[in-house]
Amino acid sequence: MTRISYQQLNEVLLRALLKVGFASERAELCARLFADASRDGVYSHGLNRFPRFMEMIRSGVIDIHAQPELVTSHGALERWDGKRGPGNLNAHASMERAILLARQHGIGCVALANTNHWMRGGSYGWQAAEASVIGICWTNTMPNLPPWGANEARLGNNPLVIAVPRKERHIVLDMAMSQFSYGTLESYRTREEELPVIGGFDLDGNLTRNPGAIEESRRPLPIGFWKGSGLALMLDTLAALLSGGQATHQIKADILQETGLSQMFLAFNLPSIDEDEENAKLINQIIEFVQGSELSSNEKVRYPGERTAAIRRQNLIDGIPVDPKVWEQVRDL
Amino acid sequence: MTRISYQQLNEVLLRALLKVGFASERAELCARLFADASRDGVYSHGLNRFPRFMEMIRSGVIDIHAQPELVTSHGALERWDGKRGPGNLNAHASMERAILLARQHGIGCVALANTNHWMRGGSYGWQAAEASVIGICWTNTMPNLPPWGANEARLGNNPLVIAVPRKERHIVLDMAMSQFSYGTLESYRTREEELPVIGGFDLDGNLTRNPGAIEESRRPLPIGFWKGSGLALMLDTLAALLSGGQATHQIKADILQETGLSQMFLAFNLPSIDEDEENAKLINQIIEFVQGSELSSNEKVRYPGERTAAIRRQNLIDGIPVDPKVWEQVRDL
Repeated sequence: MTRISYQQLNEVLLRALLKVGFASERAELCARLFADASRDGVYSHGLNRFPRFMEMIRSGVIDIHAQPELVTSHGALERWDGKRGPGNLNAHASMERAILLARQHGIGCVALANTNHWMRGGSYGWQAAEASVIGICWTNTMPNLPPWGANEARLGNNPLVIAVPRKERHIVLDMAMSQFSYGTLESYRTREEELPVIGGFDLDGNLTRNPGAIEESRRPLPIGFWKGSGLALMLDTLAALLSGGQATHQIKADILQETGLSQMFLAFNLPSIDEDEENAKLINQIIEFVQGSELSSNEKVRYPGERTAAIRRQNLIDGIPVDPKVWEQVRDL
Repeated sequence: MTRISYQQLNEVLLRALLKVGFASERAELCARLFADASRDGVYSHGLNRFPRFMEMIRSGVIDIHAQPELVTSHGALERWDGKRGPGNLNAHASMERAILLARQHGIGCVALANTNHWMRGGSYGWQAAEASVIGICWTNTMPNLPPWGANEARLGNNPLVIAVPRKERHIVLDMAMSQFSYGTLESYRTREEELPVIGGFDLDGNLTRNPGAIEESRRPLPIGFWKGSGLALMLDTLAALLSGGQATHQIKADILQETGLSQMFLAFNLPSIDEDEENAKLINQIIEFVQGSELSSNEKVRYPGERTAAIRRQNLIDGIPVDPKVWEQVRDL
C-alpha cells in the first residue's frame, strides 16, 4: 500500500477532470469530493471509484456539463431535475440549495430526480454540518438487495445520511440499508475472516457469517431483517414520489448503467445551533452516556462519524493509502 | 379471548376518560386513538396500555388538561412545549400542525419537547396519510436498548414512522430501533417458540434466538447491530436538539415515570399527491416489483402497513380481540 498526500491526490484527480472537459470550478469541487472520500477512509467511493466514474463519462451515462434545473417550487420544498449530470456535483448543489431554503424557512427540502450515483453519501452530511445546519439525505439505487422473505434483489440498499453540527467533531451517520456491502463482503473473504454477525443467506437459504457464501447467493441481508426491508422501500418511495423521478425497479441493475436516481436533501436551521453552550452540553452528555456503558468487548462504543474523523486526522498526517495499481491508472488518465 | 365491537371499545374508553375529567372533545380523540390501536392489531398500545395510562394520570405524570404551546417559530419549523399533557393528544396536535405548515410551505416540521409516551406511533402516520400528505415522525424513549458494543441500556428504541398516502391502502411503516420489543419477546416465550432470527444476547454474551435468555440479560439487539445503534442515537439527538427538550439519558428508566420525551413531526405536501394517476402507478409498480420476487418461504413479501390494514378489516368484521381481564378492569374504571 502506497501513501500519498491529500494535495497530490487532489491534483491528479483535478488534472484528469480538466482533461476530460470539466469547467474549472466544477472540476475543483468534483476532485475535492473524491479526494475527501479517500482522505476519510471511504476508499471504495474515493480514488478507487474514480476510474468507473470516468468510464461512465466516456460512455455518455454521465453528462459532465449538465447542471440541475428547478422543476417546481412549493415554498420550502423544491423539485429539481439532475439532467444526468455528475452525481456528486448534483448532490452537493442540492444540499447547498436545501441549506439556503432552511435559512429562509427554518427547514428546506430538495427532491432531486434524474441524477447519477452520489459517490460517498456522507459528503453531503459533512457539508450540512460545516454550514451549521442539521442535514438528512438519502438516495435510491439500482435493485441490489432482496426484500425480506424473497430471493431476488428487488430493493435498493438506499443509503441514508444524518448529520448534526458541532463546533468541533460533527456527528455524521452514513449507512446503507444492507448489513454489509459487496465491497465489505469481498474484503472479509480476502482476509479469510468470518463476518462479525450474520450478513445474509447461503445458497441453501440458511443465515450465514461466511462472506463468500453470500457473494455466491447474492442474498445479503437488510439491516434488521423485515425492518430494513420496509425502510428501504419507504426511502425509495419517498425519493421517487417527491422528486417525480425513477424508483428502484426502473433503474438498470448494471453498475456501469446505473443512472436516473432519485434523491432527497433536507436541512434544518436553528440559529447558532452549534454555538449554543446548552446544545454542546446536551450532545456531549448523550455521547458520554452511551460511551460510559459497561463494554461487551475490548472495542469502545463509537458515535457516528467518530471513526471517520480519526481516519481523517491520521491520513492527513501519514498520507492517504492508495492501491498502487489504481493510483498509476488514474495518474495515466 | 373475547371479541368486542369497535364501538363498544370506544364507548368504554370514552366513559373512563370523561369520568377522570377529560374535556369532552379531548376524551373523544383520546378514546379513538386507543381504540384504533387495538382495532389495527397493536393491542400492546391500545386497550392493554390503557390501565397504565390511567395510572400515570392518577400519579400526576400526565396532566390531562395541558395542551401544547408554541415556543418559537422559524417559518416552516416550529418548537412546541407539550407541557406533559397526554402523549397521544400532544402527538396528534403536533402532526396536525405540521400538516398545516406543509400546506403553507410545502414542508412542515414540529419539534415537540416535554411530552408523554405517544402510545401507538403509527397513528400519526395514518393521520398524515389520511390528510393526503407524506408524514415522518419519531420519538425518543427512556433508555431501554444497549448500544452496540455495550451491556447496558443507554439508548432509547426510538420508534420511527413513515407514511405515504394513497387513494386506498396507505403505506405506513412503524418501527422501533430494537429488533424485538420486550412485549414480543414475552409472547414468543409464552408460546415456547424460538425467535425467527437472532434477537439479542444471552447472559454469556452470545447472540441468541431464545426469547427468555434475552429477557434475562436485558440485552435486546438494535436493528442492524451497529447501524441501528447509530440511528437510534441520531434520532434522539435530533429530537432533543430541535425541540429543546430532553434526550434519552435524561429520561427516567421506569415505565411509570417515563415522561418529558422529545418528538419530531414532519409533513410533505405535494398538491394532489394521492390523486395523481402517475403516482398511483409508480407506487403500485414498486409494490408489485417487490412482491413479485421469488419467495424464500411460504410467506409473501409485505409492504409496510399491509398487515395492519388486513387486521383492521378483520377486526371490524369479527370484533376486536381483548384480554377478558383487562377488558373487565377497564369497564370497571
